[in-house]
Amino acid sequence: MKIVGGPSSLNLAQKISEELGVQLVKIRVKRFPDGEFYVKFEENVAGENLLIVQSLYPPQDSHLMELFLILHTARDLGAETIRIFAPYLAYSRQDRRYLEGECLSAAMIAEVIEELGADALYTIDVHNENVLKMYKIPIYNLTASGELARYFAKKGLENPLVIAPDDEDLAKRRAKYAAKVLNAEWDALEKRRDRYTGEITTFAKDLNAHGRDALIIDDIISTGRTVANAAKILRDQGAKRIFVGVSHALLLGDSVRIIMESGVEEIVGTDSVVNDYAKVSVSPIFVRALRGEIEQV
Amino acid sequence: MKIVGGPSSLNLAQKISEELGVQLVKIRVKRFPDGEFYVKFEENVAGENLLIVQSLYPPQDSHLMELFLILHTARDLGAETIRIFAPYLAYSRQDRRYLEGECLSAAMIAEVIEELGADALYTIDVHNENVLKMYKIPIYNLTASGELARYFAKKGLENPLVIAPDDEDLAKRRAKYAAKVLNAEWDALEKRRDRYTGEITTFAKDLNAHGRDALIIDDIISTGRTVANAAKILRDQGAKRIFVGVSHALLLGDSVRIIMESGVEEIVGTDSVVNDYAKVSVSPIFVRALRGEIEQV
Repeated sequence: MKIVGGPSSLNLAQKISEELGVQLVKIRVKRFPDGEFYVKFEENVAGENLLIVQSLYPPQDSHLMELFLILHTARDLGAETIRIFAPYLAYSRQDRRYLEGECLSAAMIAEVIEELGADALYTIDVHNENVLKMYKIPIYNLTASGELARYFAKKGLENPLVIAPDDEDLAKRRAKYAAKVLNAEWDALEKRRDRYTGEITTFAKDLNAHGRDALIIDDIISTGRTVANAAKILRDQGAKRIFVGVSHALLLGDSVRIIMESGVEEIVGTDSVVNDYAKVSVSPIFVRALRGEIEQV
Repeated sequence: MKIVGGPSSLNLAQKISEELGVQLVKIRVKRFPDGEFYVKFEENVAGENLLIVQSLYPPQDSHLMELFLILHTARDLGAETIRIFAPYLAYSRQDRRYLEGECLSAAMIAEVIEELGADALYTIDVHNENVLKMYKIPIYNLTASGELARYFAKKGLENPLVIAPDDEDLAKRRAKYAAKVLNAEWDALEKRRDRYTGEITTFAKDLNAHGRDALIIDDIISTGRTVANAAKILRDQGAKRIFVGVSHALLLGDSVRIIMESGVEEIVGTDSVVNDYAKVSVSPIFVRALRGEIEQV
């Protein structure tokens, strides 16, 4: 078995290779002056069992094309099996056709990944579980909630309360799982849709947060509004310190400012997205999964 | 038959729809805040014969993903046949594996386009003809040299000389074709590779350019160095005015400045790339091709 580190996840691939004690395949990648991607395998991979590590955070289209090209080349060069670890699986919001005529982006991605020869796909906290059904090859949806909770366990939270920022089933399962790791209580905020305006508001139910440290656990932060809203409610209800643990810290635009101004003390993301908030690695989750220990919610 | 205008080629699609007298399919496209592309067909295309118009100039990866998603959705919604017109076919430089382990990008693109359900592909002046062999579906490589020559014919060139900026077979065929349309002479510059340094220099052979208007015909301008070099040689040999006609005016970085400083009076590109130099439309070339009149070199 050998690891191929894609351009979006070089450090993560390096970590995985060290933890597994297997070699990183030497590849050379570049972008031509016109922006086209190029990859060259610097060693023979014929007959090898490969793991390609390439997260698909923004710019998603470029990271996807890089994955497609590396995958196509690896198969073309005779790799025996190819498994992909894409911690952040782009285009996972559109899980079904809500309106007539809409694209099913996730289905397209699945079709291309399978056509180009992938044998299995590992990902972290996919935004919508229906996306998993679009794959014919095995797909493993692992969770980073446990690793995020372990980070905060080391930090020493006081009488902690884990909060899901909305009451969707998947969000609650992640919060519950993090709470279990922290040996803490958990609760979920409720989202309500106005039946006339369609506007979504988070309902400020009593969270019993007074004097306690709160940890908001979420799968993804984009604009930061959901998390900021949850933090404001927690602050209003007397929470002592407020932390955020998120699997995919996309943190678009001025989301960090919005979140910090809402009273959050620290945002902790994973290396599924390469930025300053990637304080937790998804490497151990993947390595355990390869050994059969699948961490899921 | 109906036309689908992709986001990279809206005006071109509009022109084609008018010339053919067929309807443009109403679609809605957007990018989500995180950068993901979305498309929705606003009308029924089940059973329709569709033509998707989407050029793949930079940013290539985004334009490719848009094409993949529109194609996947059209097929998913039951289109009977889908033909693609991609005037600029990205990733067409790497036509074979020059070095062990290199990617074959063009083959990957071909595989994905076919997998997602395209029935035929039309393109303009592909950079490398070997790319055409990678497709199992019919692929038509049309030329814009004729339309570019017609633009300059209207301009009224004096005793014109058409020049291919290098002596590759395809470049010479394009220059010869443009010269035929202009009823003019043509010639080609010679590229020589230094056998020790590998450096490529253009050989300044006698072009008989003195006092004449020169038209450099090329398939693609990226950095502009090849064209600027040809223009300098023409100027040194006493050419009166120097024009450039190019199928794909990528015009990266400061290429326009480099070219204008070399003595070129006007750069004329086509709408295969949307920019200020797109003065010639590839629409009539495609419309004629649909009617069986394939313009090729």
